[in-house]
Amino acid sequence: MNYPCGIKKTNSKIISYGNRGMSLEADINLTNDYYLKEKVAVIHKKPTPITICKVDYPSRYEAVIKEGYFKTPSTTDYNGIYKGKYIDFEAKETKNKKIFPLSNIHKHQLDHLKSIISLGGIGFIIIRFTTLNETFLIEGNHIFDATKNEKKSLDYDFVCKKGYLIKVNYNPRLDYLKIIDHIYFGGDINE
Amino acid sequence: MNYPCGIKKTNSKIISYGNRGMSLEADINLTNDYYLKEKVAVIHKKPTPITICKVDYPSRYEAVIKEGYFKTPSTTDYNGIYKGKYIDFEAKETKNKKIFPLSNIHKHQLDHLKSIISLGGIGFIIIRFTTLNETFLIEGNHIFDATKNEKKSLDYDFVCKKGYLIKVNYNPRLDYLKIIDHIYFGGDINE
Repeated sequence: MNYPCGIKKTNSKIISYGNRGMSLEADINLTNDYYLKEKVAVIHKKPTPITICKVDYPSRYEAVIKEGYFKTPSTTDYNGIYKGKYIDFEAKETKNKKIFPLSNIHKHQLDHLKSIISLGGIGFIIIRFTTLNETFLIEGNHIFDATKNEKKSLDYDFVCKKGYLIKVNYNPRLDYLKIIDHIYFGGDINE
Repeated sequence: MNYPCGIKKTNSKIISYGNRGMSLEADINLTNDYYLKEKVAVIHKKPTPITICKVDYPSRYEAVIKEGYFKTPSTTDYNGIYKGKYIDFEAKETKNKKIFPLSNIHKHQLDHLKSIISLGGIGFIIIRFTTLNETFLIEGNHIFDATKNEKKSLDYDFVCKKGYLIKVNYNPRLDYLKIIDHIYFGGDINE
């Protein structure tokens, strides 16, 4: 049921080093906005966790953070609800054409996904190979299998075989719920 | 099935002005830690949303936020999964003994809860009357009914009648899922 890999996309774009990770995030945020507006699903990106050390109050109604540090996230970036089910995922890009390095995902993020799936939730990862301009949804269980064998990365072919290519459209930009529909609710992927 | 109101608790404690909101949050975080450890549920507090304006890099591996501002949250503070269901709630304290002011909860937080419930999720609010040392769980729908009538606050009696008193224990500290069990899964609240 997976799409064949290596399909050439016409909407290729230049992704700068500075924006690494931004483009996929922007696509997902646009998609989630669409889902929200259309009352299809409520899925949000969690704010970046920050430790705040110093706050100034230049006026009674204003607070300015003057010292803060980024914390390592203990959960994935995105969660929400679709068709009554709890949805949880992480999204990552790689410029690599042949592998997806698993160092991109923290161990406690994988542990978090495991817990979610064991409680009956839907947990997955969205991987974009930016150079190929291909974006895949791959279920958590496939990632766990790979890490069990102490693999340090996922081969592109593995992602092709076990994952699902997400089509890039105008709106919704990255309709990943169509794939969730197909896997969990028997929806037709080619509709 | 609700507990009678006005029960005197023996574990009263002094809550300072400075810590307003912290104590309930601490109780909920401890409870969520327990749920996570016992594999009962995965429920996390979302990080506070912040707009970052200026970041310094004193070394290659260190990033220090030098200017940031608090954003108004567009969702509730807590969400997660319990028995396969999506759970979403906000938690608020008031020092008022007679009413819970609805200005404590932003309109888009209520809209968010409405969307969650309409998609089949479980949405509620946990309210603590700190002076009375009583903590209630009240379903989102009851709050919406009140705001529909343009009420600016919920009477304590209303919260007593429509809500459920959450017992404070040693561990889990604030077993709010027992009430969710009762409402949604037919669990015995007095167990």
